[in-house]
Amino acid sequence: MKIVAVDPFYLKMPNITTDADGTQDTLVVRVQTDEGIEGWGECDASPLVSLATYCCPMSHGNIINIRQSLVGEVLRGSDDILRLHDKVLRNALDIQQIDHAYSGTDIALWDIVGQKLKQPVYQLLEDQFGSSSQGIDYPKIPYASVLFGDTPEATFQIATRLKSQGFQAAKFGWGPMGKFDRKFDIELVQSAREGMGESAQIMIDAGVAWKSDYKTAYDRAEAFSQYTPTWLEEPLAPEAIGAYQALSSLNPPIPIAAGEGCATFRMAEDLILNGKVDYVQIDVGRVSGITTAAKIRQLAEKEGIQYVNHTFKSHLSLAASLHVFATNEDFNLLEYPADGSELSQKLTTEKLAVGTDGQVRLTEKPGIGVNIDLHTIRDFLVSVKIELNGTTIFDHSVL
Amino acid sequence: MKIVAVDPFYLKMPNITTDADGTQDTLVVRVQTDEGIEGWGECDASPLVSLATYCCPMSHGNIINIRQSLVGEVLRGSDDILRLHDKVLRNALDIQQIDHAYSGTDIALWDIVGQKLKQPVYQLLEDQFGSSSQGIDYPKIPYASVLFGDTPEATFQIATRLKSQGFQAAKFGWGPMGKFDRKFDIELVQSAREGMGESAQIMIDAGVAWKSDYKTAYDRAEAFSQYTPTWLEEPLAPEAIGAYQALSSLNPPIPIAAGEGCATFRMAEDLILNGKVDYVQIDVGRVSGITTAAKIRQLAEKEGIQYVNHTFKSHLSLAASLHVFATNEDFNLLEYPADGSELSQKLTTEKLAVGTDGQVRLTEKPGIGVNIDLHTIRDFLVSVKIELNGTTIFDHSVL
Repeated sequence: MKIVAVDPFYLKMPNITTDADGTQDTLVVRVQTDEGIEGWGECDASPLVSLATYCCPMSHGNIINIRQSLVGEVLRGSDDILRLHDKVLRNALDIQQIDHAYSGTDIALWDIVGQKLKQPVYQLLEDQFGSSSQGIDYPKIPYASVLFGDTPEATFQIATRLKSQGFQAAKFGWGPMGKFDRKFDIELVQSAREGMGESAQIMIDAGVAWKSDYKTAYDRAEAFSQYTPTWLEEPLAPEAIGAYQALSSLNPPIPIAAGEGCATFRMAEDLILNGKVDYVQIDVGRVSGITTAAKIRQLAEKEGIQYVNHTFKSHLSLAASLHVFATNEDFNLLEYPADGSELSQKLTTEKLAVGTDGQVRLTEKPGIGVNIDLHTIRDFLVSVKIELNGTTIFDHSVL
Repeated sequence: MKIVAVDPFYLKMPNITTDADGTQDTLVVRVQTDEGIEGWGECDASPLVSLATYCCPMSHGNIINIRQSLVGEVLRGSDDILRLHDKVLRNALDIQQIDHAYSGTDIALWDIVGQKLKQPVYQLLEDQFGSSSQGIDYPKIPYASVLFGDTPEATFQIATRLKSQGFQAAKFGWGPMGKFDRKFDIELVQSAREGMGESAQIMIDAGVAWKSDYKTAYDRAEAFSQYTPTWLEEPLAPEAIGAYQALSSLNPPIPIAAGEGCATFRMAEDLILNGKVDYVQIDVGRVSGITTAAKIRQLAEKEGIQYVNHTFKSHLSLAASLHVFATNEDFNLLEYPADGSELSQKLTTEKLAVGTDGQVRLTEKPGIGVNIDLHTIRDFLVSVKIELNGTTIFDHSVL
């Protein structure tokens, strides 16, 4: 089987706001083969900057675009996915955006190989990376991932709605958290807890509010602990590893989670080994795809911390994320986008539904197991045209 | 003073090869103010991908492009440069390419403030970041930075030429190093030493040849040590920090240098604190500019290792690089591009020439102190046009 086309599609909602809502636009990537099998993946990244990584002219041997590295390549099985991952990243050693941009393609390649070999991706990963699950994929507890309301009252309303929808766990993040005073921060958490009820799990995402100020992060962890959140997420900036280390050394009363900003294996390794987080949250749409995410899962297992997905995109991303850690029973939480845009809701023809037991599981379909709705691609497509000296180097991908 | 325009210019040579020669194309950035002062900077990065970071549509509050963050902003002094650095990177938290792309702009901002305050940038940095030099800028030993020849004989010829040009130090890198056998690698180093003569300094740049294989890296360090190179550079992949640590723990007989791949402060900090390198090599065109480079210089001073520039671009980049560490007498080496393309040679109207004492020093001109040749911009410009849904969002910057 040979790769014959690699096409990025930039999709967006008509109006974009500054809300920390990653579903307002997206970049999906289709990879086609000469056997007619095609795969899809999604990036959680700037669509235009990532798209440029697919078509930028060569600058030298360390700046070669993704299409040039892939089209014509042989794809037989997961060994080839790993080989191509190495090749693409090596050819783009000096393109900083490469990890974000390649994520969608790597996911699409796993999708293709799964379809070709008639296996779900988690099974291919089990074979490639090994684990002790004997190929069992375990159901996960979905936690609804939503933004805080602008006020404690609005947050309470959101939490109440989620509870009524049957969610037993929910993460509240960004919005006003850390932007006003201590009392307000605490009231936000209190409202989330009261809305969700005592028996639910709640997670608090501080949205890098305190940058490198680990003392304020510790103070908030202590103040929030009376509402027993499962974790405090991203209290600090992604690269403030020293501050994460200092926070950890103070033994905060609630676990610390971080990792969505990781674009490389090393960034996650650094956060785990030096930042000492309790939960590492990896976005397959940013970390150069499933291949690197699977290696980070292995590291989390070795270090005895919990791997969790970061997903604030469509159910294509959700399914891709879940394949990475489906076979580990202890990694039991799944970030579950609950408030996505119309674009994000309609991107796939099916959803990973919450089961009657309140849990989410993969199907046994081959590949990623979720299909793209081509109508949605057509309806939300941004037609991108890039000309260099009058020559078109990119004209919107054709379905 | 207000920022009124931020314009990236993509320049390239007519023909681009896979050689590891970063001067075949470039992205320079011009920032203009309402007082008529303009500044220039250069990125060592994919021009098109970086340019997209200047004009990409907003995706949400963490994906906002550089122009949108800067145009209209107030610029009074270096405090504002630091404030804008924070603002731009925060607004682009989820654009991986931001550090590469913003580098040119940050350099341009230092250039502007220096012109406004009639001070060279190294003096502004002294005031902002402090040091013990009392504002003295020390001359540096330039080392010619060239690629290995394809054979030991070709490398010998290159070294002989550099010696005849008066260089007392030269770095040889990439090309065939690490691609054939051990004997060939050693012959390359031997040829460089023989061509340059016994009294010269030679540096060996392995161009990430051995990825994470620190044992082979150690073996080569041992084998090369008979030719007394000043350092062995990038024997391993940029993100193989664990392998750098393992290499360091073996106490290789020649110092280890790395760092050109650093795009963030944390990447450099990680390499210094965990990778235990002896020389940290920072590219102001990749690490989000002079601002972050100056912080890394401070860290190098604190940790007792040597800061060196990485520069494989024009003398605009060279001068910007030198300002960062000019005031530290112990940081006495300067990577000096000796084999650049016509584009790179002609980009500035003057060069940082090697003095009669064989050393390179800054002038006392305000700002960066090197002027752009606008003819070169015109002659080598790639006219870039980007349309989204038929609306032009970028049309090549006008001089």
